Amino acid sequence: MTDVTIIGTGNMGAAIGTRVLAAARRLQLLDREAERARELAARLGGDILAGPVGQEPEGDIVVLAVPFDAAKDLVASYGRALSGKIVVDISNPVDFSTFDSLAVPPDTSAAETIAGLAAEGATVVKAFNTTFAATLAVGEVAGQRLDVFVAGDSEEAKTAMAELVTAAELRPIDAGPLRRARELEGFQFLLMTLQANPALEDFNWNTALKILAPS
Amino acid sequence: MTDVTIIGTGNMGAAIGTRVLAAARRLQLLDREAERARELAARLGGDILAGPVGQEPEGDIVVLAVPFDAAKDLVASYGRALSGKIVVDISNPVDFSTFDSLAVPPDTSAAETIAGLAAEGATVVKAFNTTFAATLAVGEVAGQRLDVFVAGDSEEAKTAMAELVTAAELRPIDAGPLRRARELEGFQFLLMTLQANPALEDFNWNTALKILAPS
Repeated sequence: MTDVTIIGTGNMGAAIGTRVLAAARRLQLLDREAERARELAARLGGDILAGPVGQEPEGDIVVLAVPFDAAKDLVASYGRALSGKIVVDISNPVDFSTFDSLAVPPDTSAAETIAGLAAEGATVVKAFNTTFAATLAVGEVAGQRLDVFVAGDSEEAKTAMAELVTAAELRPIDAGPLRRARELEGFQFLLMTLQANPALEDFNWNTALKILAPS
Repeated sequence: MTDVTIIGTGNMGAAIGTRVLAAARRLQLLDREAERARELAARLGGDILAGPVGQEPEGDIVVLAVPFDAAKDLVASYGRALSGKIVVDISNPVDFSTFDSLAVPPDTSAAETIAGLAAEGATVVKAFNTTFAATLAVGEVAGQRLDVFVAGDSEEAKTAMAELVTAAELRPIDAGPLRRARELEGFQFLLMTLQANPALEDFNWNTALKILAPS
């Protein structure tokens, strides 16, 4: 069985795919345009399954590497095909019309919304929403392994995610229950505004959010 | 004139005081118990004014180094004595009865609440809420200068804060308007839960939240 399925082959799908291969996990790539999935598979190299969205996800871990609205559509359309899977929401539901808030109400999160749409038996976790694609592809910034915050209500799912993240040479941080996605999404929105601020010359969608401890 | 007044002489007041002195700024310390202010002044050393809460704040920058509820009381009781000042809210309004959310509604923040109570002409900024006292006293973690996120609606006030923070050998980050305090307070709440989690052995109220850029 394939270990990880990534749906979506944009920058984040490609970056997470790079880390999955660094972790020596088997990978399936799906995209609405199967040709894009095959192109990314060829670019990443190795024995990667590639196909169109709609094809059965073979991974135990299914990463929705698409924007929030597309992620909602995916869990709805896949339905029970995601039962038994760990479904990873990476989205940042920013209201880009104002760039001043999230597009989800403050008493919920993209992750909880997606969990509410997912079929019974699918376990939604939040992860990789605070790692920018450029940084994730490299895996470190300024000599520090990236931190990957994982929020979820299943300890088993979070353990599986921690194993994947660790194998990918990143540092997993258990951020608590799925509702902590609210704080993860909120802060990443703030970090996105910093990247977009021309006054902050060092921040160009290539920074890393890091919790440093005394060495 | 004194440059900075710190009201409150607990761990955060002491740590910010240490940084203010590192910045070679003049300092006034006020505490409900004037004796505590004098004790901290003696401990920090140097030519520091010390007195009771209620005494006129002499600093252009007035740091409310107290919990959220006490900060609200201070701006109300000081009233117009804070006009013309930069008033720094450092609080994290965590609901400690549940340790599961903030105690302010999600469509506002401690900083905005305090700004709403402050007299006309007082300029409230959010700063230092993501720096733990132990870390702040040292000024760096793992060889990295601390990041100090500053949110506020006055560019002039944020510039003054950036100058102070830089002189204190920390890195200021302009986090945007005062309402970005919502995201700063939310994420610090999450970081606090990590420090309190015994499974995360490296996190003991001594970490630093850092935005790393490629070197």
